[in-house]
Amino acid sequence: MKQYLKLDEWSIIEEGFDPENHEVSESVFSIGNGHMGQRANFEEDYTGKTLQGSYMAGVYYPDKTRVGWWKNGYPEYFAKVLNSTNWIGLKIEIDGENLDLHNVNVKEFVRELNMKEGYLERTFIATLKEGKEVKINTKRFVSIVDKEVGTIRYSVTPLNFNGELKVTSYLDGDVINQDANYDEKFWDHVATEVTNDYGSVTVKTKKTEFVLCSTKKTELVHNGTKVSFAPELIEKEKFVGHAFAQNLEQGKETVIYKYASNVTSRDHDASQLIKVGMESLQAALNKGFEKMEEEQRQAWADKWKESDIVIEGDVAAQQGIRFNIFQLNQTYTGEDDRLNIGPKGFTGEKYGGSTYWDTEAYCLPFYLSTADPKIARNLLVYRYKHLEKAIENAEKLGFSDGAALYPMVTMNGEESHNEWEITFEEIHRNGAIAYAIYNYVNYTDDKSYLGEYGLDVLVGISRFWAQRVNYVAAKDQYMMLGVTGPNEYENNVNNNWYTNRIAAWTLEYTLSVMDYLKETDANRYEALQKKLNIKGDETSKWVEIIEKMYYPFDEELGVFLQQDGFLDKELIHVKDLDEKHLPLNQNWSWDRILRSCFIKQADVLQGMYFLNDEFDMETKKKNFDFYEPMTVHESSLSPCVHSILACELGYKDKAYEMYLRTARLDLDNYNNDTEDGCHTTSMAGTWMSVVQGFGGLKVRNNQLILNPFIPGEWKSFSFKIVFRGALLNINVTDETIQITNEADVTTPLIVHGTKYEVKGNDTLSIQY
Amino acid sequence: MKQYLKLDEWSIIEEGFDPENHEVSESVFSIGNGHMGQRANFEEDYTGKTLQGSYMAGVYYPDKTRVGWWKNGYPEYFAKVLNSTNWIGLKIEIDGENLDLHNVNVKEFVRELNMKEGYLERTFIATLKEGKEVKINTKRFVSIVDKEVGTIRYSVTPLNFNGELKVTSYLDGDVINQDANYDEKFWDHVATEVTNDYGSVTVKTKKTEFVLCSTKKTELVHNGTKVSFAPELIEKEKFVGHAFAQNLEQGKETVIYKYASNVTSRDHDASQLIKVGMESLQAALNKGFEKMEEEQRQAWADKWKESDIVIEGDVAAQQGIRFNIFQLNQTYTGEDDRLNIGPKGFTGEKYGGSTYWDTEAYCLPFYLSTADPKIARNLLVYRYKHLEKAIENAEKLGFSDGAALYPMVTMNGEESHNEWEITFEEIHRNGAIAYAIYNYVNYTDDKSYLGEYGLDVLVGISRFWAQRVNYVAAKDQYMMLGVTGPNEYENNVNNNWYTNRIAAWTLEYTLSVMDYLKETDANRYEALQKKLNIKGDETSKWVEIIEKMYYPFDEELGVFLQQDGFLDKELIHVKDLDEKHLPLNQNWSWDRILRSCFIKQADVLQGMYFLNDEFDMETKKKNFDFYEPMTVHESSLSPCVHSILACELGYKDKAYEMYLRTARLDLDNYNNDTEDGCHTTSMAGTWMSVVQGFGGLKVRNNQLILNPFIPGEWKSFSFKIVFRGALLNINVTDETIQITNEADVTTPLIVHGTKYEVKGNDTLSIQY
Repeated sequence: MKQYLKLDEWSIIEEGFDPENHEVSESVFSIGNGHMGQRANFEEDYTGKTLQGSYMAGVYYPDKTRVGWWKNGYPEYFAKVLNSTNWIGLKIEIDGENLDLHNVNVKEFVRELNMKEGYLERTFIATLKEGKEVKINTKRFVSIVDKEVGTIRYSVTPLNFNGELKVTSYLDGDVINQDANYDEKFWDHVATEVTNDYGSVTVKTKKTEFVLCSTKKTELVHNGTKVSFAPELIEKEKFVGHAFAQNLEQGKETVIYKYASNVTSRDHDASQLIKVGMESLQAALNKGFEKMEEEQRQAWADKWKESDIVIEGDVAAQQGIRFNIFQLNQTYTGEDDRLNIGPKGFTGEKYGGSTYWDTEAYCLPFYLSTADPKIARNLLVYRYKHLEKAIENAEKLGFSDGAALYPMVTMNGEESHNEWEITFEEIHRNGAIAYAIYNYVNYTDDKSYLGEYGLDVLVGISRFWAQRVNYVAAKDQYMMLGVTGPNEYENNVNNNWYTNRIAAWTLEYTLSVMDYLKETDANRYEALQKKLNIKGDETSKWVEIIEKMYYPFDEELGVFLQQDGFLDKELIHVKDLDEKHLPLNQNWSWDRILRSCFIKQADVLQGMYFLNDEFDMETKKKNFDFYEPMTVHESSLSPCVHSILACELGYKDKAYEMYLRTARLDLDNYNNDTEDGCHTTSMAGTWMSVVQGFGGLKVRNNQLILNPFIPGEWKSFSFKIVFRGALLNINVTDETIQITNEADVTTPLIVHGTKYEVKGNDTLSIQY
Repeated sequence: MKQYLKLDEWSIIEEGFDPENHEVSESVFSIGNGHMGQRANFEEDYTGKTLQGSYMAGVYYPDKTRVGWWKNGYPEYFAKVLNSTNWIGLKIEIDGENLDLHNVNVKEFVRELNMKEGYLERTFIATLKEGKEVKINTKRFVSIVDKEVGTIRYSVTPLNFNGELKVTSYLDGDVINQDANYDEKFWDHVATEVTNDYGSVTVKTKKTEFVLCSTKKTELVHNGTKVSFAPELIEKEKFVGHAFAQNLEQGKETVIYKYASNVTSRDHDASQLIKVGMESLQAALNKGFEKMEEEQRQAWADKWKESDIVIEGDVAAQQGIRFNIFQLNQTYTGEDDRLNIGPKGFTGEKYGGSTYWDTEAYCLPFYLSTADPKIARNLLVYRYKHLEKAIENAEKLGFSDGAALYPMVTMNGEESHNEWEITFEEIHRNGAIAYAIYNYVNYTDDKSYLGEYGLDVLVGISRFWAQRVNYVAAKDQYMMLGVTGPNEYENNVNNNWYTNRIAAWTLEYTLSVMDYLKETDANRYEALQKKLNIKGDETSKWVEIIEKMYYPFDEELGVFLQQDGFLDKELIHVKDLDEKHLPLNQNWSWDRILRSCFIKQADVLQGMYFLNDEFDMETKKKNFDFYEPMTVHESSLSPCVHSILACELGYKDKAYEMYLRTARLDLDNYNNDTEDGCHTTSMAGTWMSVVQGFGGLKVRNNQLILNPFIPGEWKSFSFKIVFRGALLNINVTDETIQITNEADVTTPLIVHGTKYEVKGNDTLSIQY
């Protein structure tokens, strides 16, 4: 862990250039707008270590799977997030010397990610040959207003000399993915066009045939005056460039404006891409950099209005939480129901795919509480659209009759993961997808979703569970053998409590949704019953499974057993382990991890978080007290669940300790892997820790519930939530809870067990 | 399965050329002599599908491991058996037309592997352009007398024309392995030399730096008269060739004799290789083809004298068992204690490595009973020499203080397998290595081995078991969690009965060996105690583990449970499974296999085979009746154990059924994979089925025991065994058992429970 970023409430700031940190910074300072994302690569050439990354949402490549030993059922392909055409490139030569921060002396380097306004800025002074000093300032953003456009203002000021600047402004589609399994290039050339004013590169992915057309225009302003120029035109396969020169005068600023648009065949007819791209580029040019910047600022202000969290008295915590909210909003906007939230967002290639159960278990609550319900709804519709693929996926594993197994990792609904213990056995993911439907309807009260999309998915998943269990006559119970639970430090176990419970819960919920539809919309139900071919004996079987599901439990300890045989392990607490063993995943062989008691992430406790009301405080306490001390939290998704439960149990110190584990995960490069990209999905977990943990937010029986408490380290904190038309700003100090309703809808709620009401545009103050 | 080979008692015969069978034949017709092996590739060019394979024992390459997902503890390299310099190559051109069986019409094709005399012969008539017919006869062998030499007699007779023959006789070291992980070539050029008479190619493996020097000379005989020729010399990187021409006369035979020697730096000083190689080549030349052929015949007659099995009344069975004995004798001769028995012998590249637990569990009994005890002893010494590496291997997995875990697959003692569920968890292999020591001493009575080598290995393995178990206080028992038993269709199970039992047995045996040494050679014991640092509290711990080891058992069924929770599975018999599902490993995804009850190979029953005397017939019967019906025998190592136990239990039909499963595995390409090479180690299992199964051979308390019974399908069978100086030829019909002692030592034995004695050079006849 290396802390090198400056604390600031609204910005991420790096002062001084250290090449050792550069790849981490490239991840942290990434910009994105849901349609595209861009790592904080330099515009000018850089020959030091770098991970170049320009990503287009939903554009992927099915890279041939690489395994040591093939097993039946493995997917043939692993969907990769694609590094795409470099649209930021500006080659900068001064008096014939190439500006490359790997080769020149750099001083007064400052890099800033301004989260409030949504831009990346960088300033430095480079010392060239013969002591020539040049000051560079560059500012760029991808617009959240004009989604297909990114723009750069690149300024060059010679401090102690006159000279000549040569700029080559280019688009380069000849790029690679560092994680390509077979060192293959994923993009084919389609077309290039270049005129004095414009350039475009059109490329197409192999196999998937996504077409990406990038267009660009470059403008030049010298000493405040726009300069026209006759560029040298460069055109190669997958590459166009405009090269032009400008005299530099000491102390005078020369500014290059680069506008680029990136349009894809996902959104437009492939044959029209150049036309569409030129139009969107032209629209941006008409606005100009400053107007676009102003619109960007305003749009971000609107986002913050709905989703900000303010922490007083702890700048590090404030910066951490805003960074997380910022990255989530950069990654997914909910406007396109074909998209989802990759584990690294737009900040790196690693993990491929775009969708894990992270989305349902961790990200959904963030979007539910901070944005229009349609955004969360689109995350659900995404899975609905993949139902057929999930049924095919289950068929490949021997299931039938409409049983659906959603993939562990996917881009297009097909499985692309290939570790048997995860791909085939970590089936609890199916439960999280069912739970998300419950979660969405419970929060929004949008029951229309159930008849429109929800039941199809619930029935598919229920059918999977009903086929996956087996009846053990000797015990008159249903069991589920050979699974991997959320705690991936156990593989191929029998009767993982969480999986058994979420399976039976799915059956219960599916039956209750069927009952609800029968009562409220009999026609729709009948149509669905026909379409899905639901028969009475099938649902009777579900009832039987629910009644006879086996749940491992230890009477003496009063805890659910994570799986059969858990108590045969040597039960050791993490605190009693010599530190040299941690993290286990870097120090222990896999078998040693597996036979140990140590837990990677919440498993039984994940169930107690999801199905919170099923368990009394005594049960939650016993299970928390039993499992948490054996948990190593080597998944970034683990601490948030523990933090929330600790809050509920009144374990203040533990709650804050767990909160700190992920709050600044990437800013402090806690896991030493941020160079690969940010841990985007776990950022939602940090938000959950604040809002559901410290804020105690729940919705039960259409009631909004808050149970806030404030960590001793903080003076106050406040968060915003949207809830059924209300926009609540909840401020918590150690003396008062103040709830301001910024919308018009009167909202009843329960705070620490007492019922209140906040009128529209009114404030409720509660003293402790 | 495709039966295309002709039945014959002493030869494998293929009539007619079908390119579809060629790669299978290349495996089946392989020749070898323990030092080197050669697939039945054609001498002349062949552009059809072929797997070229020329292998040098003990010469390997550590190919960089390929995995999908890396886990701590995986080995960096996978040791590959290397395809080496092609020494058989003869390019044959007739009137300018290249002889290539892929492109010409072939008739009267006969390929014969003569097992009695140890050679490969091939005859065919090829029709060339303009209807020219040429008859080819080629015969070759690798000498089991002059181990480094292989020789070829290649005869060309034009049947209906006069013409010109051009021959290019070459050595080609520029070869590849088809299973290279990264398409790398493993051999580097060292030197080539070529004179009018001789040629040599010296190559060196990358990383391991094994040097191989191949030398060759070619002689020409036309119409019975030796012809001298002035060849064109060809010299390229890793390649030398001699090209020469000869007029062909209709009906007259032209014969090319090619002699090649292959010497390696494993056996000789690398700097002397050319010299040594030329010497061994010259010695062969001095003998000439016919003399070498005569010596080969005689040497094979000696081998058959000790190891033959004769089956009357069933040519297919006769051919099958001789093929297996022949291949085992071609693969391992026991002269070099650095070598071992690869799962494909010298017949293919697949599986890499050379040593699996197959050696101890299946191959050792064959060599014990059919060869001088020093050969079996060398198989044990091989593991002794790898003890340090086994200790290092265990250290990598977190064990300490001299605990040894032998690798799953190895060439040089280092692990080279990388599936976590096998590499890290299939630790029962350690037990088989301990058991082999018991087995060797029990059979040979060579107790000197224990003090010299045995105890070191036993203590290392015992230490591993003592650290690998964990004490469960609540049950006051020791358990072993997270293992894979011999049945690889279960992974990461708790308390695999076989593993628990073989572990405790190892501790028992180690303690008994220590007691034996204390009593018989106190000085040696004291020295070993010091060297191995054996302390009293360590052995007390072993005693405690033995006493408190947990063995899963079901009272009601009276069977040991393969592992915890086995009875929670749906228990189905293989016969009740729709055939479309079989073999499971080609039709089911891994999770489905794992959670099913189906068993790949003997597991509990493997224990009952090894520790046969520990269990009464009732127990064996119950366990056999319970497990066998759930066993799919998808390992070629499975049927033999079942066959032997079925014989003991008097299940005649089952015994014969199991015998048939592997008796002709490769000859009939039963598993459809013989093109990759023969299943060499499972051939030993077939031998075991006959000798230990139908012959009922056991050695208990220094008593040789026989309990023969004859399958109804056979008229008689006889097998030979060596036992403590005796060479017994045991002939069984359905009326008599006749035992001829071909050596001088009087041998007591027990047949069907009655004590007898066979005097030297005498025959004992027993009527049923």
